[in-house]
Amino acid sequence: MVVCTGQSFLAPYKSSSIPGLRQIFLRHPSFQATRFFPSNCPLPQPSFSQSVSKQAASAGLRLFNSSHRPRNFHFSKTSIGPFAPVYVQLSKPRYFSQSAKMAITSGSYTQKHKVTVIGSGNWGTTVAKLVAENTREHGDIFEEDVQMWVYEEEVTLSKDSPHYDESVGDKPQKLTSVINKYHENVKYLPKIALPTNVVANPSLQDAVKDSSILIFNLPHEFIGNVCKQIKGHIPPYARGISCIKGVTVTDSDVSLICEYIGDALGIYCGALSGANIASEIANEEWCETTIAYNTPPVDEPGSNGSAGGADGTNGHLDARGQISKTQLTPVPQEYPPLGHDVMYKLFSRPYFTVSMVSDVVGVSLGGALKNIVAIACGFVEGHGWNMTAKTAVMRRGMQEIIAFAREFFPDTIEEKTFWEESAGWGDMIVSCTSARNWRYSKMAVERGVTVQEIEKTELNGQKLQGISTTREVASFLRARGVEQKYPLFMAVDGILDGKVKVEDIPKLFRK
Amino acid sequence: MVVCTGQSFLAPYKSSSIPGLRQIFLRHPSFQATRFFPSNCPLPQPSFSQSVSKQAASAGLRLFNSSHRPRNFHFSKTSIGPFAPVYVQLSKPRYFSQSAKMAITSGSYTQKHKVTVIGSGNWGTTVAKLVAENTREHGDIFEEDVQMWVYEEEVTLSKDSPHYDESVGDKPQKLTSVINKYHENVKYLPKIALPTNVVANPSLQDAVKDSSILIFNLPHEFIGNVCKQIKGHIPPYARGISCIKGVTVTDSDVSLICEYIGDALGIYCGALSGANIASEIANEEWCETTIAYNTPPVDEPGSNGSAGGADGTNGHLDARGQISKTQLTPVPQEYPPLGHDVMYKLFSRPYFTVSMVSDVVGVSLGGALKNIVAIACGFVEGHGWNMTAKTAVMRRGMQEIIAFAREFFPDTIEEKTFWEESAGWGDMIVSCTSARNWRYSKMAVERGVTVQEIEKTELNGQKLQGISTTREVASFLRARGVEQKYPLFMAVDGILDGKVKVEDIPKLFRK
Repeated sequence: MVVCTGQSFLAPYKSSSIPGLRQIFLRHPSFQATRFFPSNCPLPQPSFSQSVSKQAASAGLRLFNSSHRPRNFHFSKTSIGPFAPVYVQLSKPRYFSQSAKMAITSGSYTQKHKVTVIGSGNWGTTVAKLVAENTREHGDIFEEDVQMWVYEEEVTLSKDSPHYDESVGDKPQKLTSVINKYHENVKYLPKIALPTNVVANPSLQDAVKDSSILIFNLPHEFIGNVCKQIKGHIPPYARGISCIKGVTVTDSDVSLICEYIGDALGIYCGALSGANIASEIANEEWCETTIAYNTPPVDEPGSNGSAGGADGTNGHLDARGQISKTQLTPVPQEYPPLGHDVMYKLFSRPYFTVSMVSDVVGVSLGGALKNIVAIACGFVEGHGWNMTAKTAVMRRGMQEIIAFAREFFPDTIEEKTFWEESAGWGDMIVSCTSARNWRYSKMAVERGVTVQEIEKTELNGQKLQGISTTREVASFLRARGVEQKYPLFMAVDGILDGKVKVEDIPKLFRK
Repeated sequence: MVVCTGQSFLAPYKSSSIPGLRQIFLRHPSFQATRFFPSNCPLPQPSFSQSVSKQAASAGLRLFNSSHRPRNFHFSKTSIGPFAPVYVQLSKPRYFSQSAKMAITSGSYTQKHKVTVIGSGNWGTTVAKLVAENTREHGDIFEEDVQMWVYEEEVTLSKDSPHYDESVGDKPQKLTSVINKYHENVKYLPKIALPTNVVANPSLQDAVKDSSILIFNLPHEFIGNVCKQIKGHIPPYARGISCIKGVTVTDSDVSLICEYIGDALGIYCGALSGANIASEIANEEWCETTIAYNTPPVDEPGSNGSAGGADGTNGHLDARGQISKTQLTPVPQEYPPLGHDVMYKLFSRPYFTVSMVSDVVGVSLGGALKNIVAIACGFVEGHGWNMTAKTAVMRRGMQEIIAFAREFFPDTIEEKTFWEESAGWGDMIVSCTSARNWRYSKMAVERGVTVQEIEKTELNGQKLQGISTTREVASFLRARGVEQKYPLFMAVDGILDGKVKVEDIPKLFRK
């Protein structure tokens, strides 16, 4: 798979911390790096100095200034922040060359990736199942056994269970033992056969030991504690994928859960999100997902495992487009290179179509903020309005999500994630037509009670995620005095407070 | 409403037919024009010659070449076709200046726009209703009475009708008389009160007489004949809006219905489309729409009603981005300028939110091709798959619609119409969850019969529009040998033929 040959993209540049050198960030859906060039490079003159061009050529790059760029030029983004543009074209394949690909498939690496799923609820067990199907199929890349950390508890099998054992009777048994014996998570994913290579493990530290790929899949309130427990017990070169949708919003900041995990553990962590529902995937009903994984430069095959930047940084950018405070340890060369290709092979199933992107911001924001829109859709539908009105709310909601991304992540956002990906419009549609936040906010309006009341009577006190997201986001926007730019988000907050009426929603959108 | 001040956009240029002059097309969501500059303008050198800059400044434009463009630069499109780019910034308001706006609202024009709705079915009568509500509200711009052409027929009112008249009994009455007497279209939009200023008229030629705004709203098979009948009977400066969704596809061409109307009548015609259903709008249930109206340069207030081009053309571009073969007569200066502002006032209601764009191609293609996707969604859902699978099909369908637009309308397509507008994703969602094509293709799979069978048994032989669109588009793609780029469109065609199975759909999307 040659990903980048001949493609071009826009790279902002700025003075680096090293005298005499300019720093150029290269960002591309399947490629990211930091390179340095002499500051006396005469931009934006018609051509680069010979020495710079030569240096670039040896790095597999061609540089153009804006008036000499090639016709088939593709932008990676149209807004370039505070820097003047430099156009960079990759003249050599930079991601997986044919030879690198062959190397993976021919199994010439001496190490295989060990995979651990952290979490074993409905969604965690589902992901463990599909991942284990893939580690078995791709034995040249992955160790076959997939560890699944299970918060140990005791279960009792009833007589009508196919796993009922007379010799045990109704004595409590450990959940991990039951999973490993019967290959079924009888408590959280009953009636779904798990591959025998899913290994339930009650010890968190033992489950993550030597694992180069960690998949996080547990309620987000447990993340902080789990990270504390495994820190120092994972390989320094481990990489993560967060299946926990969303962002953490306080009055002062919006942060991505995947980035929180990465920073807490000193690793890089991507995010999985999309228009999919755990129970359906478990039943192998076809659906899609998006995985955002912005392969760190140190993990590119071309980097030979060395840290990339001339200033000693590894050039890994955070969600704001700044050099990350987390210093990454490269994945050793003994392993198959850990990028989009390997992640795709780990998650893609015939019933689970995966699209790989690099935009962790778009995938994370889409996964979180769409819940506010789902609440709004529930209100509108509960009020008796039809699909056309609900669709109008979805469309406006998507526009506010994108406005939010543009305002608070201006240097990194890729709008096309929202428009094109399953984690964008796809997830929006499913969330506003078949998921929890929509269902229970609709029920509240239909019954003429508050959503809080529904949480008590229907959800056993469990909280709807969309409600807390709405509260946090509204408070964050108010703290910045920009709430007038987000009329739908604020209306949902106002409706929750009883200060705004559902029937006022159309007024928000009149000129 | 100052629309364009300070905004910038990209304009391709090429040699004009006039020696010594370069022709520059300016395109912008609310502005379009052709301007000419001396060929010796030293593009792409750092600055324009003084004479060109001066000429541009006097026209209210600032020109930049690519390396000197301002930071807040916005592209109108990223693909620029075969021409090198020129960057143009409007330094004066070009659309409605404050004074022009005041002129409209203060009613200083001696003529008002007369509006005729051609067609009086369910959808036509609904549009006549909302338009008549607006002509009454904006008496400074429009004549109050709205003509509605009705294909005359006889109706009989039953005894339980509120309009039953004992003196008439069950004698047949003319539909136009009933509408004008009781202000209700008892046959096609029963139980909806029409404003008294909707005037039903059985004479097509009399209905369109002196009308400067024609709204086309009838089954598309009647368009050709209607255009023949009214040609020569409308003012040469009339303008149109087509509420007939779609395109006409033959093996050799794709043409827009609105453009067909414009060319047939020698006028300009825009298009209305969106996530809306006639009966809901008639009941004043809130929904949205998109109106695509690419205001002809001759109608801009700044053009003073004169034809704009130095070569005598009026610079009006067709759907392919070429100079249109239709020579327009400017709307006389006695009328309020006919652009987005007036069209918005004509259609926008508290229950009907209007978004104005210039992209007639996107609005027309979206309205037509989404029906193929709706058929696919019906198949998938009828097969028992869930919302996540259906959403995946919608997402892939949208990608194929955009690929189609890019391939066959490369110079004019604005992708954001599909992503952002009600005529794009909005219409897609409604069509795939609540409209005819989806409903009956779902029913066919559920019953294990062909869609053709359903047309016979459930639709009284009436044809589903999505079926003929699928057939025409598939044939068009095959004639070009590009069918492999459109796997979903072709799969729907194959399923209709019994050659492809619904359960094969996920395979289309695996890498």
